[in-house]
Amino acid sequence: MTTATNTSPSTAPTFVRSDRLILAGGGIAVALAAVTRFVGAGAVLPFLCSAVAVTLLASLVGRSVEQLGDRFGAGATGVLQSALGNLPELFIALFALRAGLVGVVQAALIGSILANLLLVLGLAFLVGGLKHGTQKLDSDRARSIIVLMVLSVAAMVVPSLAHYVHTPAAAHEKTLSLIVSVILLVLFALTLPASLRRGETADAGAGMDHETPRWPVWLAVGLLTVAAVLSAFVSDWFVVALEPAMKALSISDAFAGLVIVAIAGNAIENVVGVQLAARNRSEYAFSIVINSPIQIALVLAPLLVVLSAVFGFATLTLVFPPLLVVSVVIAVILTAFITFDGESTWIEGAALIAVYAVIATSFWWG
Amino acid sequence: MTTATNTSPSTAPTFVRSDRLILAGGGIAVALAAVTRFVGAGAVLPFLCSAVAVTLLASLVGRSVEQLGDRFGAGATGVLQSALGNLPELFIALFALRAGLVGVVQAALIGSILANLLLVLGLAFLVGGLKHGTQKLDSDRARSIIVLMVLSVAAMVVPSLAHYVHTPAAAHEKTLSLIVSVILLVLFALTLPASLRRGETADAGAGMDHETPRWPVWLAVGLLTVAAVLSAFVSDWFVVALEPAMKALSISDAFAGLVIVAIAGNAIENVVGVQLAARNRSEYAFSIVINSPIQIALVLAPLLVVLSAVFGFATLTLVFPPLLVVSVVIAVILTAFITFDGESTWIEGAALIAVYAVIATSFWWG
Amino acid sequence: MTTATNTSPSTAPTFVRSDRLILAGGGIAVALAAVTRFVGAGAVLPFLCSAVAVTLLASLVGRSVEQLGDRFGAGATGVLQSALGNLPELFIALFALRAGLVGVVQAALIGSILANLLLVLGLAFLVGGLKHGTQKLDSDRARSIIVLMVLSVAAMVVPSLAHYVHTPAAAHEKTLSLIVSVILLVLFALTLPASLRRGETADAGAGMDHETPRWPVWLAVGLLTVAAVLSAFVSDWFVVALEPAMKALSISDAFAGLVIVAIAGNAIENVVGVQLAARNRSEYAFSIVINSPIQIALVLAPLLVVLSAVFGFATLTLVFPPLLVVSVVIAVILTAFITFDGESTWIEGAALIAVYAVIATSFWWG
Repeated sequence: MTTATNTSPSTAPTFVRSDRLILAGGGIAVALAAVTRFVGAGAVLPFLCSAVAVTLLASLVGRSVEQLGDRFGAGATGVLQSALGNLPELFIALFALRAGLVGVVQAALIGSILANLLLVLGLAFLVGGLKHGTQKLDSDRARSIIVLMVLSVAAMVVPSLAHYVHTPAAAHEKTLSLIVSVILLVLFALTLPASLRRGETADAGAGMDHETPRWPVWLAVGLLTVAAVLSAFVSDWFVVALEPAMKALSISDAFAGLVIVAIAGNAIENVVGVQLAARNRSEYAFSIVINSPIQIALVLAPLLVVLSAVFGFATLTLVFPPLLVVSVVIAVILTAFITFDGESTWIEGAALIAVYAVIATSFWWG
Repeated sequence: MTTATNTSPSTAPTFVRSDRLILAGGGIAVALAAVTRFVGAGAVLPFLCSAVAVTLLASLVGRSVEQLGDRFGAGATGVLQSALGNLPELFIALFALRAGLVGVVQAALIGSILANLLLVLGLAFLVGGLKHGTQKLDSDRARSIIVLMVLSVAAMVVPSLAHYVHTPAAAHEKTLSLIVSVILLVLFALTLPASLRRGETADAGAGMDHETPRWPVWLAVGLLTVAAVLSAFVSDWFVVALEPAMKALSISDAFAGLVIVAIAGNAIENVVGVQLAARNRSEYAFSIVINSPIQIALVLAPLLVVLSAVFGFATLTLVFPPLLVVSVVIAVILTAFITFDGESTWIEGAALIAVYAVIATSFWWG
Repeated sequence: MTTATNTSPSTAPTFVRSDRLILAGGGIAVALAAVTRFVGAGAVLPFLCSAVAVTLLASLVGRSVEQLGDRFGAGATGVLQSALGNLPELFIALFALRAGLVGVVQAALIGSILANLLLVLGLAFLVGGLKHGTQKLDSDRARSIIVLMVLSVAAMVVPSLAHYVHTPAAAHEKTLSLIVSVILLVLFALTLPASLRRGETADAGAGMDHETPRWPVWLAVGLLTVAAVLSAFVSDWFVVALEPAMKALSISDAFAGLVIVAIAGNAIENVVGVQLAARNRSEYAFSIVINSPIQIALVLAPLLVVLSAVFGFATLTLVFPPLLVVSVVIAVILTAFITFDGESTWIEGAALIAVYAVIATSFWWG
């Protein structure tokens, strides 16, 4: 009886405390971002407000998708989250491309991968390890995710390597990037059905704590639409505010993209991943943290390449600057070894954070 | 009684259907290759005919060795196959060196490794995974083969890296390559006895489907000799036809060596590896596919370096162009991770093929 | 009763045969090194004598620490050994820096890692494998050591990579190196308590053959002091003799640092590691061999960077020449794969030695 009520579309909307915090905070942050944007409040304040607003809107999108997705099963939710969870990042990147900030976009794409693999995974290992001792990871599922992550990033990175060492292909940088992007998107499309199915079995088996949906469909769809539209606007303000703020704080472009935009764009996933590790659900935390780089390599980056060509924005190619490529290769290999290790300790977490700190420091001087 | 008859040298020759196909097809292809070579049939036709002829002769060599080797046990067969199975590739490379096509030979050596590790392994995983679901690989044997593969390729690749970054050694490129080649050949000689023994136990344990020999010794030896001699001639024609054909099709040298010569030279192993995976014998398929790069790194490449110095052909060194080295390093690391994963899925296969497509595309523009 | 006597500080000093050999040999070598240093005995003899003296003093330091440390438990011994075992290497490096031999110090640091990971581990696998067949390694402990090793070396190597590919940071090479050194030392400090505890449990569990201490505290402390002071002097003579000897033998700076200084500085650990493998204690051998690179990356290298800045010696940075970085990356990845393999064979040992030989050959031409 209860179940029937829960899944029926006529459920009365219920807002738990965190829902209310996000809705209220998001509303205030968007308002502040709008005011500081158009009133002229110096270089730094508009940037900070829009960064907070983007983060909270991203969280709201995630939550709406979760409420909506529960009606279509866990697999569909996962895919919806893949598609929509990266929406704010996509908006930021598109506006940044329109503004000609190709370097920032490239740095942010790679920076997202680095932040997830080194900083967030490191924090998850550190927090989880300090609270619960050595945590086990070695299910076959963890390994097959990491293998897909290694393969995706490798495919994304090859055009850069080709560019550095093979002069003739360099002349065809744009065409090569487009072809590779299509290959990556096809690979993603191929893995979609498996992701749908995998989600289901994982859910049934691991008993992920799915709460019964609290929002009726109309509310979930409505909030999702509002959040998506707002995040398009706020992303625009964020990008507009980025350059003056970086100049005012004398932060280099590379550092801004690699560290600041990357951490802001992934703030929510990051918090969730660390929280799950703190609750000793290391497998689930790991899966969320590793899935993000896969989506960036297989969907976000190739999609941006295609869209930038279609819309005639500043041309984004998959030829990244060398230090970005070197950093991401190091991050991927380290993560892969640590995962194959089959368990995580807080020392490994501390070492991952140390590697992240070393890379971020290397980028400090623009 | 039957066994006695089978192993006796007086067995009546039996040709199964595939034998007859290879013999007939090979004969026709060699004849066509000869005709198109000397009559002058444009640029592309002689190339295609000789490519098919080389492939079929390679298959005939493999089959004769198998028939012959069964009399000496599985270990000896394996070693014989190592020695003679690469014969056509050796001929092609020697004629190409004599013609001064050093770049094509280097690209073909690395291309063979790439084709095996990415394309063929990817196809084997894809076909095997689609037909039989997740396939298990994690025997200790698979891991120790892959470790030897990683070590062999690493040793082969170091002179290239030394060349790029260490100017003084560059002046001694030739000497360095010769010394490294000798080290590699010594390492191969050391592993030979173990390969002989390994073959035996593997055979006993895994129950490889050894058919009873169908050909008497005289026939096997005869066909082997004929096939070897013919493949020397046809390899020559293949090399002569290569450059005009590539020009007519406007294919770059790098792409020709890396993709076309590499796939033609390994056609048979490729088909066998995929067929075995389709029959759910993933361990055996894996072992065949991975053994080929080991042989290229430990035998074929060093032998060619030594022979090119002895015969005074165009000097082949182990200093490969950077993109070749970068590609092979990526391929080796990816394969190693996927193997250590302990199981293969069709998605991993698709991702490997995608990486191969990305690399091949990067080489398209010469 | 016996135990009480053994652990009491009034134990009568006992010298086993190897003790006497080291004391006598060390005394003679130091005397010869002093004579050849100040008398003028050509270019090569003083170098050889001081090299032998440094090695024997290193051994004496190690033995004194062992005798001393047994009184504080296994964990403390391990940490003391970490701290003092690298003392002679530290002295050599400091004197070499004072003499402006930055290149030799950098090559020796990387060379130590290479020698341990490729040569010594290869010898241990080869000897152990030939005597005892395939040896198992796959305890969780081995894997977590190797993961820490990979992470440490990665963090140490990033500034070099940043320098090659990211021009702006290059201008801040010194600052970047200092910051990274502090991060590495902090990471080491964090892992200390765990090392202390790990030592204890490992000891209790694995039953490491701890002999009862043979030397009273006063003797151990006295010998330690004498050995440490002497090794400071002899290290100075070793560095002074190094350059003329290399010139006389026409050996390049890079080769001298990478191979000769590195092997001399680790001679004792090397012998111990191989001996343990020969006695089929592969786990313990592996742990000793792998711990050395961790200490170099987390303590020795960063400490030298900080000290060279404090004392105003020739500036040592963490920006190593490219071939050193490439070699160490190859060595680390190969070792990691071989360890994750979970077992060691003599063929893997032979292949590791082959890779070492290839790298050393590449450095022969200065």
